[in-house]
Formats: sequence, C-alpha cells, structure tokens
Amino acid sequence: MCLPVASCLVSTTDDHHPLSWLSERAEQRRAAGLRRSLVPRAADSPLIDLAGNDYLGLTRHPEVVAAAVAAVREWGAGSTGSRLVTGTTELHAELEAELAVHAGTESALVFSSGYLGNLGVITALAGRGDLIVSDSLNHASLIDAARLSRARIAVTPHSDVEAVAGELANRTEERALVVVESLFSVDGDTAPLRELHAACRAHGAVLVVDEAHGFGVAGPGGRGAVFDAGLAGEPDVVVAATLSKALASQGGAVLGSAELTAHLVDAARSMIFDTGVAPASAAAALAALRLVRRDPGLPELVRKRSWELYELALEVGLRATPPSGAVTSIILGDPEAAVAAAAFCLERGLRVGCFRPPSVPDGLSRLRVTARADLSDFETDHIRAVLRELAASRDSFEHRSRHRRLV
Amino acid sequence: MCLPVASCLVSTTDDHHPLSWLSERAEQRRAAGLRRSLVPRAADSPLIDLAGNDYLGLTRHPEVVAAAVAAVREWGAGSTGSRLVTGTTELHAELEAELAVHAGTESALVFSSGYLGNLGVITALAGRGDLIVSDSLNHASLIDAARLSRARIAVTPHSDVEAVAGELANRTEERALVVVESLFSVDGDTAPLRELHAACRAHGAVLVVDEAHGFGVAGPGGRGAVFDAGLAGEPDVVVAATLSKALASQGGAVLGSAELTAHLVDAARSMIFDTGVAPASAAAALAALRLVRRDPGLPELVRKRSWELYELALEVGLRATPPSGAVTSIILGDPEAAVAAAAFCLERGLRVGCFRPPSVPDGLSRLRVTARADLSDFETDHIRAVLRELAASRDSFEHRSRHRRLV
Repeated sequence: MCLPVASCLVSTTDDHHPLSWLSERAEQRRAAGLRRSLVPRAADSPLIDLAGNDYLGLTRHPEVVAAAVAAVREWGAGSTGSRLVTGTTELHAELEAELAVHAGTESALVFSSGYLGNLGVITALAGRGDLIVSDSLNHASLIDAARLSRARIAVTPHSDVEAVAGELANRTEERALVVVESLFSVDGDTAPLRELHAACRAHGAVLVVDEAHGFGVAGPGGRGAVFDAGLAGEPDVVVAATLSKALASQGGAVLGSAELTAHLVDAARSMIFDTGVAPASAAAALAALRLVRRDPGLPELVRKRSWELYELALEVGLRATPPSGAVTSIILGDPEAAVAAAAFCLERGLRVGCFRPPSVPDGLSRLRVTARADLSDFETDHIRAVLRELAASRDSFEHRSRHRRLV
Repeated sequence: MCLPVASCLVSTTDDHHPLSWLSERAEQRRAAGLRRSLVPRAADSPLIDLAGNDYLGLTRHPEVVAAAVAAVREWGAGSTGSRLVTGTTELHAELEAELAVHAGTESALVFSSGYLGNLGVITALAGRGDLIVSDSLNHASLIDAARLSRARIAVTPHSDVEAVAGELANRTEERALVVVESLFSVDGDTAPLRELHAACRAHGAVLVVDEAHGFGVAGPGGRGAVFDAGLAGEPDVVVAATLSKALASQGGAVLGSAELTAHLVDAARSMIFDTGVAPASAAAALAALRLVRRDPGLPELVRKRSWELYELALEVGLRATPPSGAVTSIILGDPEAAVAAAAFCLERGLRVGCFRPPSVPDGLSRLRVTARADLSDFETDHIRAVLRELAASRDSFEHRSRHRRLV
C-alpha cells in the first residue's frame, strides 16, 4: 500500500523507479562477461572439489561433525546475541584459548567471519591521523577495513618491502599499520614477513598479517606463516585468521597480546554489534584445530598436493603460479576465457574457481585451483587428464573470447 | 625471532612498542567505567535470559536443533567457500526462496551475518556522488556501511520524516538512499515507514529498512514491519534482516526484487569475498522460519510478553521505553549505574543487557530487556519481584555512581 501522495507522483508499475539503473548495469556486466550467478551444489555432488577452501578436507571429518552436532544439542542453533551479551559460550572461550596456543600468541578473539575480524581489528587500531600501508593484492576485507578506518592509505606494490619502508620512513603520522596477507589468496604466494617486520620495527609500525590462507596450512604443523617466520608473540605483530578454511567451519579470529584482544572487546564495532558465531561453528573449528594439532602432517600434505597440481599444470603447458600453501592459479587472461575454461573442467567432473575482475586485475582472469589434504591419487590422475585436455583446447577459448568481445 | 637489524633498534622486552598506547587507552576506559569483558555462559545456566535476541525462544526448539544436526551430517560443518564458488548449497537456495515468500518480496540473498548484509547492500547501491540519509539511531552496521560507501551522509534526527524529506528535496545528487531500522534495536520503537516511503517516492529515493529486530517479530505472523506497512515488494524498498534473532541461528539476508539480489551477487563485496554461512545455520534458520509460518501466534506472543515487561517496569517506578517488538529499555543514566543495576539483576537470577556509550548516547546508559515468546508466568513473577527491588535500591546506584565519578 502506498499513500495517496506517493501514488499520484509515481506509479508502482512504472519502469522508472530509483533502482531502475540496476538493469542497465546488469546489461553492461553481461556485455563485459562479468555477470555472476549462484549455483547451488548438491550434498552428494560427484564433482572433485578444487574450488573450496576446505584445505585439510576436515569439514566432513567424523570428529568435526560430531563436535558440531553435540554443540547444537547442548547450546542450541544460535549464540543468541553479541559476544558482549549472551553470545559468548564456554565453547567460544575454549576455542579462543586453543587458537592462541596454536598460533603462539597470548590471546585470541573470535569473530563471526574473517571479514568482520579484519574490519574489527584494523578500525580498532587505526583511525584518522594514522597511516595504513596496504599491499596492492590485499583481500577485499582488508581494503574495506582500511577505508572504513579513515586512516590515510598508502598502497604499495605487491610484496615490495622497500616501498613499505619508504612509506613508513616518509610518513608524518605517528602511528602506522602495515597490512598484508601471509599467503595471498589468489596467486598463492607468501609475503616476505621477516623483512616486513624488520621494516616495521625500524620505523615503529605494527605489522598486521591476515593468515586466512596460512593458518592451519603454513608453518610447522600448520601454525601459520607468522609462526614460521619467528614472529609469533611479538608485541608489534597482529595476526588475523579464519575458521572457515583449514578449520572447516565458519568465523574469523584475531590473535595477539592479551592487551590487544581486550582492546578489541572494547573497540571492535564488528564484534560488539554483531551476533557471536554459532556454537556449532565454534565447536567444529575447535575439533578441526585439535585434529591439526594431533596430526601435524596434515598441513604438509595439502602443501604437497598443491605443488603437485602446479606441476601438473606446467607439465601440460598451462601458465600457473607456484603455490606457497593450498592455492595455485592457472592464468587465462580474459574473463570469457576463464569462464569457458571453468565450464570445460566442470563438464569433466572438476569444480575449480573462476576469478575475474574485480576479484583479480584486468587481463589476469584465471582458474583458482585449491588442493585438499584428502585428494586421492586417483583424483590426481583425473585432474591431470582434464588439464591436459584443457591445454590442448586453449586456443578455442581464446578465440571464443576474442569473438565475444567483437560482438 | 627477529632480524638483527630489528633487535638492535628496539628490544622486544621494551615497554615502548607501537601498540603500547593500548594500555593507556584501557586505563582511560577503566576510569570512565567503560571497560567491557566477555563472560562465557554455561550451557546449563539457570539464569532467566532477558538479554539475548532469541525472541521466539526457538534456538533450542527440537525441530530447529534437528534441522541443524541433519545439515551438519549431510553437508559438513562449513560451506567451504564464497557463495559464488562452493558456498551455496541447495539449503541456502531453499532458505532464500522461503525468506522471500515470508517477507513478500521477489527474492532474498543470505549473508554470513546481518552486519555483512548491511555493508553489502548499502555499498552496492550507493557510492561517491550519491546521498545516504541515515537515522541518528541507526545500528553500527548501517553507519559503517554508509561510511564505507563513500556517499555523502546526512544524519537526520530520529524518526523525523520532515528532516528526511528536506534532505531529499535539497540534494544535488541524483541517487539517494534513506536508511532506517524498522524496530530500533535499543529503544525498541518503530520507524514511520509509510511516511518515510512517501517521502522517498516523492523525491525518487530508495528506502532501505533494516528489519533485524522486526523480521519474525513485527507484522502479521512476523512478516515484518515493512510488510505490515504495505510496502513489501515495492520496487523502491529494500529490506535487510537477520537470521540470528527471531530465526534463532546466524546470518543475515537482503530482500527485494530479483534484479536487486542479482545485482548484489555481482557487486556486494561482503558476500563475494566472504565464506557462505554454515549449512547448520542455514538449516536452523529455515526450520525456525517454518515454525513461524506454521504458528503465526508466536510473534504476537513475544510482543505481548515484551509489553508486560514494560508495564512491570513502569509499575515499580522505573523509567522505561514502550516496546514495538521484543525490546524495552530501562534508562539508568550513568554507565556505572547501569553496570551496577545489571549486576544486581544477575545476582537475582536475571541476565539483562547493559548498554553504555558508544552503544547509546552519553547519559542514557540502560538495561536492555528483551522478551521471549517462551517466558513463563512463573518467570514473569520473578522478574516483577527483582525489578521492584531494583527500583527500591535505585538511589544507592545513583549514589555509588556519583561517588565513583568523584574518585
């Protein structure tokens, strides 16, 4: 129902309403090959999953499933409120204590997603009058966090320590954060953490490292790239992690000093004003973490599998990025070529990620191939065959892509 | 381990590191009575919960628990990726379809939290060169979303339709969003939705309504305040909702036209770059939604219970805000008084929320009391007794509070 005054002015059946620009925008995206859609997957899909982030293959592990089931039964389906009100159960506290032990930090604070963890920690540590030095390939959540903080942002070329040191040395701001990912999510390479930390130390800055793709994967026993670099527990290093990748569940965490997490409890808006992660997700992450700690070979296995996939791609003549963790990328170029290649793989039983702008720069559209610790040799053989066929058909994709652009 | 160059410059045991300002900040907060802490709750807590947002009392409902358990067993503990990659299961699609039917919209899109839903929809609909008119009492997630969008922001006095119309009439921007909550989270009052929509319609703006506290609570059968106002399905109205309150689970949703949700799939960074909500949470929300649709009396019941709590508070002489949904506030004033009152209730078996700045304006610290549809008469009697005792002891809190401030 609308009020008379309104319906006199604009009819609701009129095509011109203040959101009618959406259809025009959709058309532009369609023409550029940039439309996306959600394709629901079935529980019993026979596809080989090389697209998800369940790096250690734990999301259906019996102990993880059992822990989540027990938590739902004991606590209910939701945490019922903000972490500050009713949303912190004993499970959340237990998870935080064990996350901190694993990362080698004093303390951990769990958020309902890694995105919100990054928003929370960066806006709580930097504001107007501060500087954030941000790697050019940082994840969207880090970019949004920096924007939201209102600090001055200096974007430095990817993994360019000299550029970072230069920004720190030439700043007028007292406080500065240097923000990077430990393992970059798309190319799969590692940041030069020791060198970046040395630059931070020399210039009185804090190093914030997003270990979304490193925690549970990199370092000895999956303790992360920060631990591996000998930086765990340093007072000027802050770690962010997710519970939704190696830990097979949902949520994020910030790890550092007890003073840091206490500050976040007071100041991180994305935790204060958000509902705590569901008890089942906290329990599942905790069970996955305990599996990793019991079997330090798991993280090594996913790195080995990932390197195998990279070598397979090179072997058949594709252009691929060397993985530091679980992720390798096969570069196709145009978005249409990447979409066609992903569809080609899908028809042959492989689910791979397809990354196009704005997720990756123009001209670097790609397949993102993630390994899992539980990939079998049989599956690897099938992957090799499909990649070989893909490489042989590559010209047709590129042709198709050029053709589409001319239309 | 740090590199030699670093350890020469600053010792790691030195108190002066770039985060040492945190302890000073913590001290300031302590002095102002504004420190917060996380208090883990036990699964078998005997407290009467008047603090959580499980408005319909469904988080431990057998059907909700059974649905979450079945989902964990069928799909695993995590969704394993972005909604665009592997994070959309058939469950997610089913939930979205039924959410849209309930809200009376064409389509729905689920996010992993309500916070991220708000960030996603607002940044996808407004940018530099646009105007966002934002109610002065809007939730933190809406404030952050507006900031992140880089649109010009005009904050209007709470529920002041004339001020909103004035901002729209006087704008130079072509596009504008008016952003409000349907039921405001702290005072518990309802926005004048029809009048706001008329102003939007007259001035070619989009009305974005956050129904976090309205969906499942307000309107006929809990279909929300937007539906109740006859605005469901209007092309210039966008609804945001949460799955973590009336729907007893975790996550958020944006509801509107199919064109809108398709646009969000292309443009909402907080969905594109985030892991999909866990299958168990999607299943629990769906089960709760089905319970609401089967028993339209549930939402009425929580509104009735909430009004009873408000009347109890007035009856014993406390200052309280009239509830439109599940929430009433008992205003105490100083943060210390609110903290002391919350502790007083806790000692007597009531868990109530305690809201202090920055969650509420200075001088309006309060107890936030949320009703649940499943509160028993026995529990209500106990609540009455505690509130009566609280009212009788109020002077001592205020004295204590004044005393503390002098110290």
